Amino acid sequence: MTHPVPKGFRLAGVHCGIKSNTAKEDLTLIATEKAGTAAGVYTQNLVVAASVTQNRAKTPSDNFRVVVVNSGNANACTGTRGDRDCREMARLAGDAVGGNESQALVMSTGIIGHFLPMDRIESGITAASAKLAANDEAFDSAVRGITTTDKFLKKASRSVRIAGQSVQITAMAKGAGMIGPNMATMLCVVMTDAELTASLAQEMLTHAAELSFNCISVEGHTSTSDTALLLASGASGVAPISSTDKAAFQQTLDSVCIELAKLIPSDGEGATHLITLDVTGCATRGDARRIAKTVTESPLVKTAITGNDPNWGRIVSAAGYAGVSFDPAKVTLTINDTLIYEAGMPVTYDEKQVSDSMRGSFEVRLELAFGEGDASIRFWASDLTVEYVNFNSDYST
Amino acid sequence: MTHPVPKGFRLAGVHCGIKSNTAKEDLTLIATEKAGTAAGVYTQNLVVAASVTQNRAKTPSDNFRVVVVNSGNANACTGTRGDRDCREMARLAGDAVGGNESQALVMSTGIIGHFLPMDRIESGITAASAKLAANDEAFDSAVRGITTTDKFLKKASRSVRIAGQSVQITAMAKGAGMIGPNMATMLCVVMTDAELTASLAQEMLTHAAELSFNCISVEGHTSTSDTALLLASGASGVAPISSTDKAAFQQTLDSVCIELAKLIPSDGEGATHLITLDVTGCATRGDARRIAKTVTESPLVKTAITGNDPNWGRIVSAAGYAGVSFDPAKVTLTINDTLIYEAGMPVTYDEKQVSDSMRGSFEVRLELAFGEGDASIRFWASDLTVEYVNFNSDYST
Repeated sequence: MTHPVPKGFRLAGVHCGIKSNTAKEDLTLIATEKAGTAAGVYTQNLVVAASVTQNRAKTPSDNFRVVVVNSGNANACTGTRGDRDCREMARLAGDAVGGNESQALVMSTGIIGHFLPMDRIESGITAASAKLAANDEAFDSAVRGITTTDKFLKKASRSVRIAGQSVQITAMAKGAGMIGPNMATMLCVVMTDAELTASLAQEMLTHAAELSFNCISVEGHTSTSDTALLLASGASGVAPISSTDKAAFQQTLDSVCIELAKLIPSDGEGATHLITLDVTGCATRGDARRIAKTVTESPLVKTAITGNDPNWGRIVSAAGYAGVSFDPAKVTLTINDTLIYEAGMPVTYDEKQVSDSMRGSFEVRLELAFGEGDASIRFWASDLTVEYVNFNSDYST
Repeated sequence: MTHPVPKGFRLAGVHCGIKSNTAKEDLTLIATEKAGTAAGVYTQNLVVAASVTQNRAKTPSDNFRVVVVNSGNANACTGTRGDRDCREMARLAGDAVGGNESQALVMSTGIIGHFLPMDRIESGITAASAKLAANDEAFDSAVRGITTTDKFLKKASRSVRIAGQSVQITAMAKGAGMIGPNMATMLCVVMTDAELTASLAQEMLTHAAELSFNCISVEGHTSTSDTALLLASGASGVAPISSTDKAAFQQTLDSVCIELAKLIPSDGEGATHLITLDVTGCATRGDARRIAKTVTESPLVKTAITGNDPNWGRIVSAAGYAGVSFDPAKVTLTINDTLIYEAGMPVTYDEKQVSDSMRGSFEVRLELAFGEGDASIRFWASDLTVEYVNFNSDYST
């Protein structure tokens, strides 16, 4: 699978010394050649990194030039000095591409509560700006530069025809821990060479995030730094104007974001299964979301999946404490398409066959149906393993 | 520490064959000699065991005679047959002590979704009723009969002077997993020989539960079966009438319930630390509760405590996604009484000393202060260990 860089973008990742591992990029620049548009969606945590506060004030924007990302340090809970450092990062990145601070966005991910090494950030921005390019190597170095505990690179790409011409959407993301629904310590940058107004870009990114990044969970801990950006260079000269073209672009954007979102719990720290949960038949999508969030965050549900145990009692009882009103006598559950529980009662099924199907596949599919209405949601989550606990109780992490 | 059985009660635990381990009691009867009063508080899960539904309809009661408890099978998600079995259990227990079904309460704990072996239950009730006694041995066998994965027996006892005379409060509880705030797979029976009206008993138990059983968490999974009962035999002939006596009794009841409640996360599956969290300075107790629940349920907070890591970033960021409005610039955190974070900023402290203090003690004390008002809450929770995950991902559990 190739991930062509959309027209009008150049990017680079470099190692500037934020992380001690010198083999690993820790600073990424992504720049447009001319002013483009940028939209953002952010963490819903009340405690946020400086970058989130400042990006919120700058997006949506129709005068975007560059985003600078550092990994290894979240610049969160760092007070007024952290605010100053973040503004300085934006200024340095803006200058480096011939723009200014107001045209630059910042993302920082890594440890909370430490000040950024600004001398290294500055030399990193200088080095990266000298390496900006639009080829595969530049793209991969940029993706590596935004990662932390990720075990693989998260990339997705599609082209879509608009007004008879092809435009490109290519995106990267990072994230493996501190992942709760409503974003996570995840960062995502979606680049497109389509021409989008700032307000349309914001509307489309918000729609895509609702179906993707807001539906994933590793352990349910919402981070201080979650950011997803949609950047449009306009370099294709093609804009979605008709409702058909808008729908085509939206659908492709959704698909790219869902592909990336699923990769995050798939790479969840220590994960041995990706849980795909469909909650259907709810009165509202909000109800479905609350149930999906509660079920996928239950450590007892997660550990049952880890153990390839079709333990429906844990799943049904987790739905029961989601704070959503439903009739337990109408609840139905399938695991890997096998009916396990129907209309509030367990049914006879081949338990060994279901357990074997769980053991044999990385993805485990659950469907919980409520018979209360037409609303539904799809969530993706990690299971919970000994490796997750070892990793996160290791003092050094 | 002794746990005298309050006057007017007799009890017994027997093995009747619900659990395969023949050395272990699995059925308990607790009876009053004459009709007493009973109050109950129950799980807030929407999916509940038959016993919860039937007890709710019977309490508060001024015509109580007996509670029958079985462990090894929760009789939850068992439909109309489960309802019938539960009523039959009440009828058998009522008959066995010379009363009737309406005077009998039922508690069941164990696996979800299996029918009760009613023949064994019946012979167990017969055997237990023949052994009813008021001595230490009877008390301990009754406590053993309500346990499941508990590693130790949970008992508490106090006497309190009312109207110049002493009354006794003695209680038992069980619980080690599927423990979320707002009750858990926990059962508790508080016996007293004080004379209480049904409404006063209910009011006092509700008050005590708010400070105790509703403030504990192992993994935050609210169960289908949680039940705490306050049983008053009246056999002392002493009733709390004056406001002073009522306050003295309430305070003693609170203290018994808090002592038992803390034992549950202390025995949380695989727990290596008891986390005691004080959330202070909130606008409302509801706000304090939401923050305490969110912080103590975060796997990242729990694993940091497991690793003796004063990782304040995880604690402060968990508060930030509790859904409570506060000013992050006013948040202060202490760990084991050492100031770690003040007014929204980390402070300099001896990290090794704090980590050593965590390593050296089973209990780790956190205080999060918000400066938004006068409301507070105290929560108790388990940490999260490899043993918890191993235990709960073991297919056979």
